[in-house]
Amino acid sequence: MQIGIDSFAATENLDSNKKKNAKSIDELIDRIVKADQVGLDVFGVGEHHRKEFLDSAPHVILAAAAAKTKNIILTSAVTVLSASDPVRVFQNYATLDLISKGRAEIVAGRGSFTEAFELFGYSLKDYDELFEEKLELLIEIQNNETVNWRGDHRPPLMNQTIFPRPIQDPLPIWVGIGGTPQSFLRAGKLGLPLMIAVIGGETHRFKPLVDMYREAGRRAGHSPEKLKVGLHSLGYVAENSKKAVEDYFPGYAKTFTRIGKERGWPPVTLERFKAQNGPSGALMIGSPDEIAEKITRHSKALGGISRFTFQMDNAELTHHQLQKAIGLIGEKIKPQFN
Amino acid sequence: MQIGIDSFAATENLDSNKKKNAKSIDELIDRIVKADQVGLDVFGVGEHHRKEFLDSAPHVILAAAAAKTKNIILTSAVTVLSASDPVRVFQNYATLDLISKGRAEIVAGRGSFTEAFELFGYSLKDYDELFEEKLELLIEIQNNETVNWRGDHRPPLMNQTIFPRPIQDPLPIWVGIGGTPQSFLRAGKLGLPLMIAVIGGETHRFKPLVDMYREAGRRAGHSPEKLKVGLHSLGYVAENSKKAVEDYFPGYAKTFTRIGKERGWPPVTLERFKAQNGPSGALMIGSPDEIAEKITRHSKALGGISRFTFQMDNAELTHHQLQKAIGLIGEKIKPQFN
Repeated sequence: MQIGIDSFAATENLDSNKKKNAKSIDELIDRIVKADQVGLDVFGVGEHHRKEFLDSAPHVILAAAAAKTKNIILTSAVTVLSASDPVRVFQNYATLDLISKGRAEIVAGRGSFTEAFELFGYSLKDYDELFEEKLELLIEIQNNETVNWRGDHRPPLMNQTIFPRPIQDPLPIWVGIGGTPQSFLRAGKLGLPLMIAVIGGETHRFKPLVDMYREAGRRAGHSPEKLKVGLHSLGYVAENSKKAVEDYFPGYAKTFTRIGKERGWPPVTLERFKAQNGPSGALMIGSPDEIAEKITRHSKALGGISRFTFQMDNAELTHHQLQKAIGLIGEKIKPQFN
Repeated sequence: MQIGIDSFAATENLDSNKKKNAKSIDELIDRIVKADQVGLDVFGVGEHHRKEFLDSAPHVILAAAAAKTKNIILTSAVTVLSASDPVRVFQNYATLDLISKGRAEIVAGRGSFTEAFELFGYSLKDYDELFEEKLELLIEIQNNETVNWRGDHRPPLMNQTIFPRPIQDPLPIWVGIGGTPQSFLRAGKLGLPLMIAVIGGETHRFKPLVDMYREAGRRAGHSPEKLKVGLHSLGYVAENSKKAVEDYFPGYAKTFTRIGKERGWPPVTLERFKAQNGPSGALMIGSPDEIAEKITRHSKALGGISRFTFQMDNAELTHHQLQKAIGLIGEKIKPQFN
């Protein structure tokens, strides 16, 4: 199983202090370097268009990381494809693939925030249709240097060639997914690997959806090897369980109370947190052995996963804490999955 | 005066061999590192959407270079702004600015090839209007974190915030320009610095246009320091003049005969080449001292320039030849302008 880290390039710096933001990006790149050094398989950077995240252009951050790393896969997590031009997305990641010598991937999703829609002039009423159409075009470009395509949300391509071509053929494209059943079906039909974001509740509850995905893939004639499933969850490790929770909880509570206000969630309590951090819960905060066991448990519950990634950015942890956690994940968790 | 290099990420590899393309990008990044090491001021990467150039996403290449360089300014040369979304362009270069700690610039132009128009669904009949509108929006974003804007070629922005903000305030935006008088006037009115591409003929013929630019800028109330002029020309240096021409001419002839077929130019001859490489000609192929003198001559002819950049990519020179030329430019030409 591949083990990795996802980041949203969070900055505590909500007053747009530019030097602090440069430091935050620097530290993020250092963490990607660290993840590469300790043998982790993949590092993902998200896409947001908000003051508290610096990742509106994740391909630019990943390219800088590519120049400083050797083996780690560099991926978007996720590219908000609905609000993007698939031609530009492909060009960005194909270029990254050349620079990294075949280590670029795209995780295409609809995003869990919605600000990209307004910023790029799309309507939320086309939420699903936009993603479907743009994913179709992205796959067309993935498979063909010369593209003929026509849709409703982007000018048609008539005999257009798209460069550069990546080293990997095809450039890996995953679908990043929340809990919508239709999204599982679609990914299965298309035979695309799936990254499932489970950021709360109990992970095993996704089993029926994963089964739907695999069944849809089988029916569409895709081989089981193509139908890979990855899991992205909030996680953090420290020397022991107690320290991990002490480091993680205060920032987590702050962030999710803030996001909760936008989305109508109840305020975070330590009790609810502990419930979700229990044996079958989605939160992965604990000691390395505890979390390694939990990854195995979640993998079994979902019928076997190929990739697990830790999202540690939402708890206002310091760079030092994050670096240390990446070290522990590389040295103590990753070897258990080789 | 700043001295720099511009590249189009050319690849000889017209059969899309992916490993060769990765090598071409690697070598380009090595040249940017070399340019930084020998003290050159600026490196620009163009934007094309053609098989023979690998720079459809120049910001991605520049980000990898940012991770490996210390002082050199990293710029697009040019961003084909007419066919781009200024929001994405700004996000890409603001991110590059954070990564490079304040070394990112944008040279915005209309491009000298036209394939981006069809690829991104724009009409050549809007050639000028598109650029004008998008430049206006880019400047709006350069100057304001929150943007209210409405135009004809991009969805409106209502109270939209654009992140990340760059370190440099404002992020430098130049206008990249061919010979159109209206473009000189526009850049002057806007008080934007100007990169003039002179790739043939005699450089001093641009003097009246540069005067127009400076006069338009003065009338619009911009200070003379803001009205900077840079010059981009085809150039190459070797130990001596004879060797420079021997290295450069065969590939130049091949490339410009090919481009000429698309654009209706006469075939290249050595005689015509030599005429344009004469004392007042736009071609800058010769020994370091010869070319340093010529830069000074061109600068005087244009009323003083702030930046000169060498475009060496159109002559099928080897990586070794290009590296050596960059070394000579840094060690023998640049010190004459400190």
